[in-house]
Amino acid sequence: MSSPAGPAAADHPVPDRGDLSRRMAGEACGTAFLLVAVVGSGITAQRLSGGNVALALLANALATGGALLALILALGSLTGAHLNPVVTLFEATERRLPWRDVPGYLLAQVSGAFAGVALAHGMFSLPVFAASSHVRSGPAQVLAEAVATFGLLSVIRGSIRGWPRGVAFAVAAYITGAYWFTSSTAFANPAVSLARAATDTFSGIRPADVPGFLFGQLIGAGAAMAFWRWLLRRPAARTRTLDPTTQEVAS
Amino acid sequence: MSSPAGPAAADHPVPDRGDLSRRMAGEACGTAFLLVAVVGSGITAQRLSGGNVALALLANALATGGALLALILALGSLTGAHLNPVVTLFEATERRLPWRDVPGYLLAQVSGAFAGVALAHGMFSLPVFAASSHVRSGPAQVLAEAVATFGLLSVIRGSIRGWPRGVAFAVAAYITGAYWFTSSTAFANPAVSLARAATDTFSGIRPADVPGFLFGQLIGAGAAMAFWRWLLRRPAARTRTLDPTTQEVAS
Amino acid sequence: MSSPAGPAAADHPVPDRGDLSRRMAGEACGTAFLLVAVVGSGITAQRLSGGNVALALLANALATGGALLALILALGSLTGAHLNPVVTLFEATERRLPWRDVPGYLLAQVSGAFAGVALAHGMFSLPVFAASSHVRSGPAQVLAEAVATFGLLSVIRGSIRGWPRGVAFAVAAYITGAYWFTSSTAFANPAVSLARAATDTFSGIRPADVPGFLFGQLIGAGAAMAFWRWLLRRPAARTRTLDPTTQEVAS
Amino acid sequence: MSSPAGPAAADHPVPDRGDLSRRMAGEACGTAFLLVAVVGSGITAQRLSGGNVALALLANALATGGALLALILALGSLTGAHLNPVVTLFEATERRLPWRDVPGYLLAQVSGAFAGVALAHGMFSLPVFAASSHVRSGPAQVLAEAVATFGLLSVIRGSIRGWPRGVAFAVAAYITGAYWFTSSTAFANPAVSLARAATDTFSGIRPADVPGFLFGQLIGAGAAMAFWRWLLRRPAARTRTLDPTTQEVAS
Repeated sequence: MSSPAGPAAADHPVPDRGDLSRRMAGEACGTAFLLVAVVGSGITAQRLSGGNVALALLANALATGGALLALILALGSLTGAHLNPVVTLFEATERRLPWRDVPGYLLAQVSGAFAGVALAHGMFSLPVFAASSHVRSGPAQVLAEAVATFGLLSVIRGSIRGWPRGVAFAVAAYITGAYWFTSSTAFANPAVSLARAATDTFSGIRPADVPGFLFGQLIGAGAAMAFWRWLLRRPAARTRTLDPTTQEVAS
Repeated sequence: MSSPAGPAAADHPVPDRGDLSRRMAGEACGTAFLLVAVVGSGITAQRLSGGNVALALLANALATGGALLALILALGSLTGAHLNPVVTLFEATERRLPWRDVPGYLLAQVSGAFAGVALAHGMFSLPVFAASSHVRSGPAQVLAEAVATFGLLSVIRGSIRGWPRGVAFAVAAYITGAYWFTSSTAFANPAVSLARAATDTFSGIRPADVPGFLFGQLIGAGAAMAFWRWLLRRPAARTRTLDPTTQEVAS
Repeated sequence: MSSPAGPAAADHPVPDRGDLSRRMAGEACGTAFLLVAVVGSGITAQRLSGGNVALALLANALATGGALLALILALGSLTGAHLNPVVTLFEATERRLPWRDVPGYLLAQVSGAFAGVALAHGMFSLPVFAASSHVRSGPAQVLAEAVATFGLLSVIRGSIRGWPRGVAFAVAAYITGAYWFTSSTAFANPAVSLARAATDTFSGIRPADVPGFLFGQLIGAGAAMAFWRWLLRRPAARTRTLDPTTQEVAS
Repeated sequence: MSSPAGPAAADHPVPDRGDLSRRMAGEACGTAFLLVAVVGSGITAQRLSGGNVALALLANALATGGALLALILALGSLTGAHLNPVVTLFEATERRLPWRDVPGYLLAQVSGAFAGVALAHGMFSLPVFAASSHVRSGPAQVLAEAVATFGLLSVIRGSIRGWPRGVAFAVAAYITGAYWFTSSTAFANPAVSLARAATDTFSGIRPADVPGFLFGQLIGAGAAMAFWRWLLRRPAARTRTLDPTTQEVAS
């Protein structure tokens, strides 16, 4: 768990073990801005695009990707920039976050997400919350959420292994693309899914459809955890002599 | 204030303490190009988009983001690439810029911004200046400027902490997104706000609406300063033995 | 073939010689996601763009580029992130991949590509496979595939030489652009070409047109191999005293 | 002029002094691909955009930026990736390229540019060359070329000083934006200007308008050279004890 010594350590966005309340504030603030980006850009995009949904989705996807790149670069060294409960769970199972910090992270992400929706509504003179009427249902979309979440966690895990600073670029680029290549527009985030039920705008999701999205996300997360555990298991002959933590950073 | 020794120093865009006149020239030139990008791309976008405002705003946002990435990469090591009075004030309160340099920076930014508007107008055969008639008013837009400015300064502060070279990417991506996710299109910059009152084109702002924008920006800047001061305050037990400057760069 | 010692080694995405089955799983999974991105974003783009092909292609190109950036950052340190038979052949001729690994890589890429098409179809409630009716024929498109493939391999080869981590950015940017600047939309990948024959959607290719694409790709790949072999041949006087592997990384 | 020793050297894209013929081949090939990108994406964009010029220019700008990022990452360590006569002249005046190499670079760039136009035409089944009828005239556009070229050289010069690897991102982002924020769509390159006169497509320029563009570019280049010479002149007290080359890389 400890950060390895030497120059390589500077590259690895292991959250410094500052006190949890500050890191929770960072996660809450970051997740709030993520929802501001998703919901706010959806509102502008729908208002200006004159009914062309492709153009609206393009703006929505680029604004979300831009916000993600900025937020992960800004918060990575402070909190790990999870902004997403399944990322927090993934990091805990991989022992890059202590399990005792998990409840605080999840609470910060969910409350931050709802605060972000309220803030976006405030900026566009809308009521604080409004239940969405945007139908997103059916097994194809549940599959899409599983695929999107599997891909997101894989992109994070692989990038951390190869070039930790690249995670921000990888996640932003992945989500921008996944808005288009999944049928569900790739929520891939339980906190985001819950909060988007509270906005009756372009990016909303009907509350009744949220459980299916959460189910898909958990399936995808479980598959990613199993896949990467197998993928990165070192052959016995090599782990005998090498510290696996250092090995990873240096590879 | 001094730049730490060793390889980490090369990563940190602390302006070398060259004479102020050269750094002022850099800030003026950079802010001029920022306004050329904002105003000029707005003119082209409006002329070519056949009335589709979403398409025009997409071009305007991407051109602004592209210019910001280029300008911050080009000027970061020379002046810090503030291009923005609230960034200069933030840097001064954090003691990364001496207070005695602040008036020169602000003067260079404001005069550069107006020069940029004039230059954009010259490239498109328009009069040097023209008061904007673009209404941008109401409390929602003032709130949006506060949110946009809080976010911008947070993104800068967090990125400097984590990976100083990433600031250029973080700011460019943030502003490209914020054009869409705020209701005010995220001016987040007093110099830009003043100068955009002098162009009666796509990106203009009615002079009467500028004070509200400035008010929102100052509120957001104050909140960001307070938040990050609290967020990065080291527990006493840790600051005792570590030089905080080095600590930050290496974290 | 061995990775050079020292800090420079951390920069070079030489696949660690883990067992082949894991690297094959990585290549299959990555190529599947590449096809999910190409095919899935094409479906969404066509459905939402209201008949505006330029807008659909823009979304398709950006989603593909985003996926490529994420996939190469995620898999580069594990498998080399070839995701493309001609890249694998190029790496083998340059002795960055043992020839004995080539059949496994090709098998993983082709089977992963078809799995990705099936997965995209599943997410959009389409039949598993369907022969494409999208005509892409004629000598101009064969020439375009040769140009696209020559350019892709050149971009990879040059970037590895200059800044190995930059390969992900270079390839993603190149392909996003090449969707537009070639008349064939730059497949530049035999596994992708075969699998896209199995989708009757925006990004499909009529099976009868695949051989011409493969022919163009092989011509382009052969030209790239010859060109770069000549371009990087060291003068005798310099190779005598320097280890060429180290030389390349440090240049 | 020699590359400084130590790890910093790996960061600096000083062309290794391989033989000139290989570097000329690299410059010719790179400039050809740049024209393929500009002209080819213009053709596709115009064919698909159904008369919406903003959408066509957006695709044209993004494809050009993507190609530039890829080409500079690929060729930077080999030739310096000038791809532009005014960049070559700028590098020579700054003594990062020997003057004796300049004629070869310029010849390679101009001949590569025309070859690229021919190749793009071949991919789209058009005649090898055709004089453009696209009018781009008037003092505003000449001013725009001066501004665009001043900005391009400034972005290159500043980025090399701060983070040499960032040049590729800075130039690509700058040109993508400058397509929109200049009235001339920012040719900023004499070789590109000459060759674009030979294509009667979206990105062409009427031969009679080329001299005005070249004039503007030379004015802008001269201004950039003078400005940066003044901006980076070291105070006497500091240059006495420091090697300016090393200083720059480490700053």
